Amino acid sequence: MKKKPARTEATTVGAIDDEALRYTAGRDVELDLALVEADCIGSAAHAVMLSRLRLNPPLFTPAQLRRVLRELAAIRRAAARGEFTIRPADQDAHLAVERTLTERLGELGRRIHAARSRNDQVAVDLRLFAKRELLGALAETAALAATLLEFGERHAGVPLVGRTHMQPAMPSSVGLWATAGCESLLDDASVLLQAYELNDQCPLGSAASYGVPLPIDRQLVSDLLGFSRPIHNVLHANNTRGKNEGFILFALGQTMVTLSRLAQDMILFSMPEFAYFRLPAAFCTGSSIMPQKRNPDVLELVRARAARLLADAHVLQEILRAAPTGYNRDLQETKEPFLNGLASARATLRVMDRLVAGTRVDEAACRRAFTPDVFATDRALELVVGGTPFRDAYHHVKAHLGELRARDPVEALMRKTHLGAPAGLDYAAYRERINALRETARAETAEFDAAIRRLLGR
Amino acid sequence: MKKKPARTEATTVGAIDDEALRYTAGRDVELDLALVEADCIGSAAHAVMLSRLRLNPPLFTPAQLRRVLRELAAIRRAAARGEFTIRPADQDAHLAVERTLTERLGELGRRIHAARSRNDQVAVDLRLFAKRELLGALAETAALAATLLEFGERHAGVPLVGRTHMQPAMPSSVGLWATAGCESLLDDASVLLQAYELNDQCPLGSAASYGVPLPIDRQLVSDLLGFSRPIHNVLHANNTRGKNEGFILFALGQTMVTLSRLAQDMILFSMPEFAYFRLPAAFCTGSSIMPQKRNPDVLELVRARAARLLADAHVLQEILRAAPTGYNRDLQETKEPFLNGLASARATLRVMDRLVAGTRVDEAACRRAFTPDVFATDRALELVVGGTPFRDAYHHVKAHLGELRARDPVEALMRKTHLGAPAGLDYAAYRERINALRETARAETAEFDAAIRRLLGR
Amino acid sequence: MKKKPARTEATTVGAIDDEALRYTAGRDVELDLALVEADCIGSAAHAVMLSRLRLNPPLFTPAQLRRVLRELAAIRRAAARGEFTIRPADQDAHLAVERTLTERLGELGRRIHAARSRNDQVAVDLRLFAKRELLGALAETAALAATLLEFGERHAGVPLVGRTHMQPAMPSSVGLWATAGCESLLDDASVLLQAYELNDQCPLGSAASYGVPLPIDRQLVSDLLGFSRPIHNVLHANNTRGKNEGFILFALGQTMVTLSRLAQDMILFSMPEFAYFRLPAAFCTGSSIMPQKRNPDVLELVRARAARLLADAHVLQEILRAAPTGYNRDLQETKEPFLNGLASARATLRVMDRLVAGTRVDEAACRRAFTPDVFATDRALELVVGGTPFRDAYHHVKAHLGELRARDPVEALMRKTHLGAPAGLDYAAYRERINALRETARAETAEFDAAIRRLLGR
Amino acid sequence: MKKKPARTEATTVGAIDDEALRYTAGRDVELDLALVEADCIGSAAHAVMLSRLRLNPPLFTPAQLRRVLRELAAIRRAAARGEFTIRPADQDAHLAVERTLTERLGELGRRIHAARSRNDQVAVDLRLFAKRELLGALAETAALAATLLEFGERHAGVPLVGRTHMQPAMPSSVGLWATAGCESLLDDASVLLQAYELNDQCPLGSAASYGVPLPIDRQLVSDLLGFSRPIHNVLHANNTRGKNEGFILFALGQTMVTLSRLAQDMILFSMPEFAYFRLPAAFCTGSSIMPQKRNPDVLELVRARAARLLADAHVLQEILRAAPTGYNRDLQETKEPFLNGLASARATLRVMDRLVAGTRVDEAACRRAFTPDVFATDRALELVVGGTPFRDAYHHVKAHLGELRARDPVEALMRKTHLGAPAGLDYAAYRERINALRETARAETAEFDAAIRRLLGR
Repeated sequence: MKKKPARTEATTVGAIDDEALRYTAGRDVELDLALVEADCIGSAAHAVMLSRLRLNPPLFTPAQLRRVLRELAAIRRAAARGEFTIRPADQDAHLAVERTLTERLGELGRRIHAARSRNDQVAVDLRLFAKRELLGALAETAALAATLLEFGERHAGVPLVGRTHMQPAMPSSVGLWATAGCESLLDDASVLLQAYELNDQCPLGSAASYGVPLPIDRQLVSDLLGFSRPIHNVLHANNTRGKNEGFILFALGQTMVTLSRLAQDMILFSMPEFAYFRLPAAFCTGSSIMPQKRNPDVLELVRARAARLLADAHVLQEILRAAPTGYNRDLQETKEPFLNGLASARATLRVMDRLVAGTRVDEAACRRAFTPDVFATDRALELVVGGTPFRDAYHHVKAHLGELRARDPVEALMRKTHLGAPAGLDYAAYRERINALRETARAETAEFDAAIRRLLGR
Repeated sequence: MKKKPARTEATTVGAIDDEALRYTAGRDVELDLALVEADCIGSAAHAVMLSRLRLNPPLFTPAQLRRVLRELAAIRRAAARGEFTIRPADQDAHLAVERTLTERLGELGRRIHAARSRNDQVAVDLRLFAKRELLGALAETAALAATLLEFGERHAGVPLVGRTHMQPAMPSSVGLWATAGCESLLDDASVLLQAYELNDQCPLGSAASYGVPLPIDRQLVSDLLGFSRPIHNVLHANNTRGKNEGFILFALGQTMVTLSRLAQDMILFSMPEFAYFRLPAAFCTGSSIMPQKRNPDVLELVRARAARLLADAHVLQEILRAAPTGYNRDLQETKEPFLNGLASARATLRVMDRLVAGTRVDEAACRRAFTPDVFATDRALELVVGGTPFRDAYHHVKAHLGELRARDPVEALMRKTHLGAPAGLDYAAYRERINALRETARAETAEFDAAIRRLLGR
Repeated sequence: MKKKPARTEATTVGAIDDEALRYTAGRDVELDLALVEADCIGSAAHAVMLSRLRLNPPLFTPAQLRRVLRELAAIRRAAARGEFTIRPADQDAHLAVERTLTERLGELGRRIHAARSRNDQVAVDLRLFAKRELLGALAETAALAATLLEFGERHAGVPLVGRTHMQPAMPSSVGLWATAGCESLLDDASVLLQAYELNDQCPLGSAASYGVPLPIDRQLVSDLLGFSRPIHNVLHANNTRGKNEGFILFALGQTMVTLSRLAQDMILFSMPEFAYFRLPAAFCTGSSIMPQKRNPDVLELVRARAARLLADAHVLQEILRAAPTGYNRDLQETKEPFLNGLASARATLRVMDRLVAGTRVDEAACRRAFTPDVFATDRALELVVGGTPFRDAYHHVKAHLGELRARDPVEALMRKTHLGAPAGLDYAAYRERINALRETARAETAEFDAAIRRLLGR
Repeated sequence: MKKKPARTEATTVGAIDDEALRYTAGRDVELDLALVEADCIGSAAHAVMLSRLRLNPPLFTPAQLRRVLRELAAIRRAAARGEFTIRPADQDAHLAVERTLTERLGELGRRIHAARSRNDQVAVDLRLFAKRELLGALAETAALAATLLEFGERHAGVPLVGRTHMQPAMPSSVGLWATAGCESLLDDASVLLQAYELNDQCPLGSAASYGVPLPIDRQLVSDLLGFSRPIHNVLHANNTRGKNEGFILFALGQTMVTLSRLAQDMILFSMPEFAYFRLPAAFCTGSSIMPQKRNPDVLELVRARAARLLADAHVLQEILRAAPTGYNRDLQETKEPFLNGLASARATLRVMDRLVAGTRVDEAACRRAFTPDVFATDRALELVVGGTPFRDAYHHVKAHLGELRARDPVEALMRKTHLGAPAGLDYAAYRERINALRETARAETAEFDAAIRRLLGR
């Protein structure tokens, strides 16, 4: 058989219509820049594995392997400097890397795609990319949780009118409010960790979903890439594309729901009519027409970005639901929402951290808000302690609302001492959970970095 | 203070407009029947805890507590027999139970609502209800996974044209297809288990979200109800309403996505043009006009029910995202999608189990479908083994597609021996994972049952 | 050929599995009660048309036709009295009506299904049902728009702090706020009218989507049923199932978005910290634990019900998107969201009408809210009138915010006289648009009623 | 008052935090490039109107107005050449245009923002932009409808196995299938036209939602910009932001649902197992690993892009639902989905047009697919014509399915002559509807172009 020149364009059936090419490539040429690093790493592991196959002649001799790894490292560095480009004819990062390898290494570049398909390349690339992003998101969640905890502890004794239905309800505290946010983020992080664990499986070796008639070593590839284990069934490996991303987005969506609700509270608390909180000026913006304006734009955008991320998580599920198993091109449309969602959630975590840290509490305004009716339930429960059945006490207070008197709100708080109440919060336990989360993120990152370093240096 | 007669209607501000009452109650009077049992259980734990408060006079003496528990047990049994009714004026299960207790026990009934609100009642009720449903769903997931495993193992050697883009791609097997479904369900179960764990926390004691000025013992209530722990922050406890349900629905949604995709495959495989599979007649329906029809209605409905459940999971997130923290009445609208979603997912798991079990594979039809082009990649990889760079081999085969010859598909399968490929599947490992899942569901159920029995008998 | 006894169950291939039957029937046996009336009407038109086919022997002689119509009228009346039941074995309204006819009329009942399928029955039933509901919704929209207009006109001169970003922005008025809602509803009604027009096409005669080899007269059926025209292509007729409902839900969703935003405003305006509005007591509810509570539950539920309706509109599109053309059973899952959405939107329109009508405005509270900074833009525009470039005036005022003085808010309003500004509103034009809408709904209803009466009496 | 230098940054309260700036600006600096042209047009109309205000001194003398218009025209041309840039400090197109004007014209640039806000600028810009896009989409819809009509007419007599539940059902034709798509697009276009009409209203003059104390002439601005009328209520004008875009996306979503379903059919029809259709090679793509592949990627992406557009339409509604009235920054997040959705829908219309035009029908394959059971219903209806009640005929055929004989499918088609059936299609009526649509798009475009030309030349 005569050797052919490298022809990457030939992966298409023939000449593709220009409009169809634009339609099918979508924004991939641009979006895939985020995946070049992961593609080099995944290709490196694949090449190492191929070089160990007992074929004669071998796919790569040790020397050839070193050359391949060197070029992959070079491409990776170029991408990090923003100097690697994906051409429209490449269609995506995967063929761009193969083309570049082939331009530089000739036949060695044409060897690298043995026993894999673009489908499992993009699958492994997205998981490698997501792994680092998730570790970042976990660390940022820990940071924001710590900021909320610190905010809560600093204002543990500042009374706040607790609300239900947005109406004044019962005495609460800034400490309770802030640690509720903190605990919510910690719950959310447990979901994110579960998404991290499912993501931490190696799909490579699925090829076109059905495996290959070569004795490839999928366990080795998984180990080289620092994954916890390979996905077993190769068809399942392919089927997880999109679904894995969907769970990650959902998990981030839980965090966004927490932050959206905190944002709503903070918008309310910082309205001049309430003035419990004063947002840092550097996080507010003005108006093009109204000179006096000082708007909580960041908080409003948190609310709207949460909506978009939730919709993106949903659409990923929908795209999958409607597709049969095995790879379908529909999956390409899951990439942009996924990359956007990751970036959006992490930006939100970071900006909220600084915004909360810079928010000032006006204790006097908080106290002024306590009208007598806020103590109605406390009064009814006093009657209960005195022996009145609760329902009777409730009706009595209700019939005599006008007789309620203002009380010292801090004193009222101090009497709520049971577990998790304003005066029964265990700040130390929160700190411990946050530290454990931070430590998990740190340790996993170190392990992942070490695996990549062993494979491709730097 | 003079004793008042029991007046449950007085929990509203005054006389409520009839249209407004219908609008606010929605379908609660009907839906809440599902929660009466949980409400009795939660109330029993609450009453035990109240009776242990060191108040003088005590809220319930030991004898009074026994009477309360006896009546709660009676209501629970009545509900199980379908003989408990919620009146429109009750609005919901919680006030219906309180009213009934008061009718039967007078003052003791009026005592029970001390230190709690309907909000944390519904929160604990939904978590108790969900706990049992989730354990059921986990067991049903294990059952369907086992059925798919058995189906796959039985047809391990039956060749199937593997598809991508719905087009013939490479040799696959019924074994690979069925265990891909099995592995997907096991992944989904791990998400469901995470949802189970987050659900397994006790919210009671949150009251109106801000705790109470009484030394209630939230740890005791949590223990009595068999929860793993109380939610700490009382405001957070309330904020998890809806969000907890949303995660559960999402987790079930993952399962539904798996099943929807399997359903799509099975619809295709059982079309007369393919005829790989023959669906059990008892799971097909006919037409009112076309005498020859034999339609895969169940599979089509799986696809559509998946869509509805995903949308319901999404709307729960949306309702929460848009609400400030603390209880807001918007949350009522999360109940119906939640109860429907649980029921729909479980029904789907059960019906799919029986449908898969009854499906017959037509091996001859499966074999007939293997046209020569399905072996194109195998051929290219043979050239690779012979030393040709993959990309060159690919182009060679592509240029000579007409020369491809039919092969024995089983032989082709037998050469895919690597981990997770058609001839490299570890059926025993699947069995182990299924058994572990089944055992978890069994053990948790037993423990939960025991806790409830200790509290309320039977 | 020997005559067979009526066997409606025989429309299924054979005996269907019980679990499968429950799964496929879903809530149809219950939901379809809403469609019995429409089914009788549609069947009546179909029978009339069949009787006019020039067949020998005719499908129905004039006397036979009269008997069929009489029985259909009887079934319709029974359904209206709640005395018609659909048995599980019937599966749906369509076979229940055919079975009942057959029980009463023998062979005549067995003749009625010639040249139609259940698919086009349900299609025509849903369109007939939707027609009446839409006319109701249009009338209710007109009523609420009139109430808002009246509310706005009554409080045309009451100043309100206009907000952007929820922060005080510029002087506004209750009149501007209320008529903004009114105009929004009128825009929404134009979308609803477009949905009404698309709905007003007759699908009958599609049979199983592909027409029949009989010379049926689809134009006649369409005319008898009072539709504006038949859908032309029979496959398209079937394909509109679900899509028609989806557009209707979307159009109602536009209305719900308008109402949800009004509800949010009203929740804010009626918080004690604002107290601009006082909601009618009969539309507020209390708390089971807090004696002082007076919660805007109705408004919160409007917000949440809007979310559910939007999600239902979305899921209908999704179910369709993922299905090939021609009938697929997935469509069954569009029925429940559709019926629920119609009922929910109409209930919301009605309850909001009464709630707005009963809301009181506290003019003094509205005036008190005007702090000097609300006039900042007015001040900058005064400088503009005096010759200062706007951007300079803006910066000047911004630099001297402390020098702003309180002004009379009504005077400030009176100076906004341009088209559509607080003092430039054309109340009469609104009234005209509302009357036109009301008249359209009335005239269409009358015409529809007349057609049905001609067909089936009463 | 002393003149100040131009300071666009001063529209923010003070120095804004860098992270907050990135977060709030989002992708606006990039996305807003699409709006620069519209911003110049809108600003031109605003400047003309300001120049006619009877102020002394006037805001713009005739000579000054000419200079402003000349610069706006220059910016517009620069933007068209891709030579206009929005700086991060500008935040958006509106301030970038104002800054550029001010750099070039000094005080005249600082005058232009009198009596308007960025909010109504973006509102009018989006409507102007959308107007042109919608006219394009309408023309493209007409083109694709014409292509489908032509495809249908050309293959009017080619039989196709009609399917329900994806199973063979009854005889159909390629003509019926293609014109069903055509009629669906024409229905969709009627929704799009309704969206066009609602979009065709001018919001300018709303300022910050509450109007201004200057006698601005909103009718004049509306006329200058070629809108059919101004939105009346200024608060409503602002509230339509996002909602207008949502309806447009929904309307495009209807079209996408039509195209997604057509795509599903075409994927099926072109599978080798069916081979009814042969897709044009230039619209298919290959595989990186499987040499034989020829995948219908375009059609798969149509399906997935439909999902994304539907989700984007939904999220717009959701963002609005959750926001109170008046401008809220959440609205910024509606811009990207809107611009993406418009572009995606139009690209889909264009690519489908060329793909359908290039698709070949294999009549022999279509005929081969007709198995005897496809004629079962035709047989039952023959018995009906002979006098057998339909239900009896149905059961008879069902009991004797084995006796069904193959028939000539074309003959079977020819007997379905009623309105809208395969042999009863009115191709001329379709052509008329398409021409009317095309003419509407053409005439509206001409009128819009003329208005813009009068205002800003070229």
